[in-house]
Amino acid sequence: MISGRGKVIAHLGYTTESFKAPMIYNPWFETNGIDAAVVPLGVTAADFAALFPALFRITTLHGALITMPHKVAVTALVDELTTNARIAGSCNAVLKRPDGSLLGDMFDGDGFVRGAIRKGCVVRGAAALVVGSGGVGSAIAASLAAAGLRAIGLFDVNAASAEALAARLRGHYPSLRVGTGSADPAGWDIVVNATPLGMRADDPLPLNPDRIGPGTFVGEVVMKEEFTPLLRAARAKGCRVQVGTDMLFEMIPAYLEFFGFGSATPDQLRAVARITY
Amino acid sequence: MISGRGKVIAHLGYTTESFKAPMIYNPWFETNGIDAAVVPLGVTAADFAALFPALFRITTLHGALITMPHKVAVTALVDELTTNARIAGSCNAVLKRPDGSLLGDMFDGDGFVRGAIRKGCVVRGAAALVVGSGGVGSAIAASLAAAGLRAIGLFDVNAASAEALAARLRGHYPSLRVGTGSADPAGWDIVVNATPLGMRADDPLPLNPDRIGPGTFVGEVVMKEEFTPLLRAARAKGCRVQVGTDMLFEMIPAYLEFFGFGSATPDQLRAVARITY
Repeated sequence: MISGRGKVIAHLGYTTESFKAPMIYNPWFETNGIDAAVVPLGVTAADFAALFPALFRITTLHGALITMPHKVAVTALVDELTTNARIAGSCNAVLKRPDGSLLGDMFDGDGFVRGAIRKGCVVRGAAALVVGSGGVGSAIAASLAAAGLRAIGLFDVNAASAEALAARLRGHYPSLRVGTGSADPAGWDIVVNATPLGMRADDPLPLNPDRIGPGTFVGEVVMKEEFTPLLRAARAKGCRVQVGTDMLFEMIPAYLEFFGFGSATPDQLRAVARITY
Repeated sequence: MISGRGKVIAHLGYTTESFKAPMIYNPWFETNGIDAAVVPLGVTAADFAALFPALFRITTLHGALITMPHKVAVTALVDELTTNARIAGSCNAVLKRPDGSLLGDMFDGDGFVRGAIRKGCVVRGAAALVVGSGGVGSAIAASLAAAGLRAIGLFDVNAASAEALAARLRGHYPSLRVGTGSADPAGWDIVVNATPLGMRADDPLPLNPDRIGPGTFVGEVVMKEEFTPLLRAARAKGCRVQVGTDMLFEMIPAYLEFFGFGSATPDQLRAVARITY
């Protein structure tokens, strides 16, 4: 229950109806006596560039969660971007530092990697295929690289998008082996669907599950249902998998740390959250 | 617990540390399943004129509570003011109407009058002395006039302030008898301290309590302590009194109605509020 001494985290996006963060963070703050609140603020794309700096004039505004359609636009409006945000080309968290400057970071990828590591997946030295080079795919690639990946394969139906991500990764991680052009999951330690395929019942699979080896760790960003067709196929082959909402709940401790609110485990967060999946 | 479908009420002022509204409204919303939140947003006087219209671009922003130092400045930034706000010359609530236009109202006075009526004070046809012609005194005078007062006496150490309020009252309520220049409480049905005197231990009394008749209803806006020296003196004379926080808790149902959140009684609000006086 935020007081006048509390810290406001603006949740910025449009439309707002499907926002989940307020129902996860606020019960956590309440349960733990943290004087802060995540507040859903609908801002259209047309208004964002003018409103974003204005909002940070608010003395109680401590930071922001950034969601669609502002994750790319915000990168031009902060003072500094982390490496993850620069590789991702997008930003989903902004912290107002004590000197008033704004730091942008991107936690989608950290959520994925934290969840994979918690499940016993070894990322350091591994080889990963990331299918989809949009915002979330780029973020996952950046976080996998930061966690010590040896080699990465990138595929996107828009080949230029995958090539651009490859160039950003090579610039920041010169020793990482980066390949592009194939969605074949055979031979990779980690396989990630970072495309929207699986959102709709009649979507094709993002890659051919017959080619996934049983020792592969398979992760998913789609959270339309717990086990998407891809994850069901991977489980049938004996693979360990990670569902889409794991990324979400694993990401939140990273945000809490970023904003200076301590930390939490995903299970602790799920126990108090007002949403279910 | 506000969701992305919820209504945000910005609580605008500076500084914010002493804000009470979030701890009154938010427990009420929570208890009653109302998807809304009052959010403390610190805005300096220098930023207010630019930030206020920008904030109302936020699609989830339903309205605002306005407090120091913006109550006067905001009157120039809304599309329409109620009669109470025009007489008060200030505004402490703004509603974004469905067409996007902003309506400003002032509830300090309604809080006072609702509390007095609840305690059996007859306002219609009565004569009231209001000492202090600043924002809250003007608001109380406006609400007393709206409730059917017969005559009003106004006093302020700044005589021009009392005269200006008298002129505004006469303009809106031609049949109301309005006098100025005396703080003598003798002969009035209702006597109100709307000055800050009583905030500090060594403050003089705002008026001479020896001259208050025992049938007079005496109200106070100072909420530093429950029974101020003026109220203690009035009680000693047998008067019925109204403490400062009554105005606050009586005001909130008026706000709830204004914002379309139903209503409540002060006792219901006090029962769930996270503050005590």
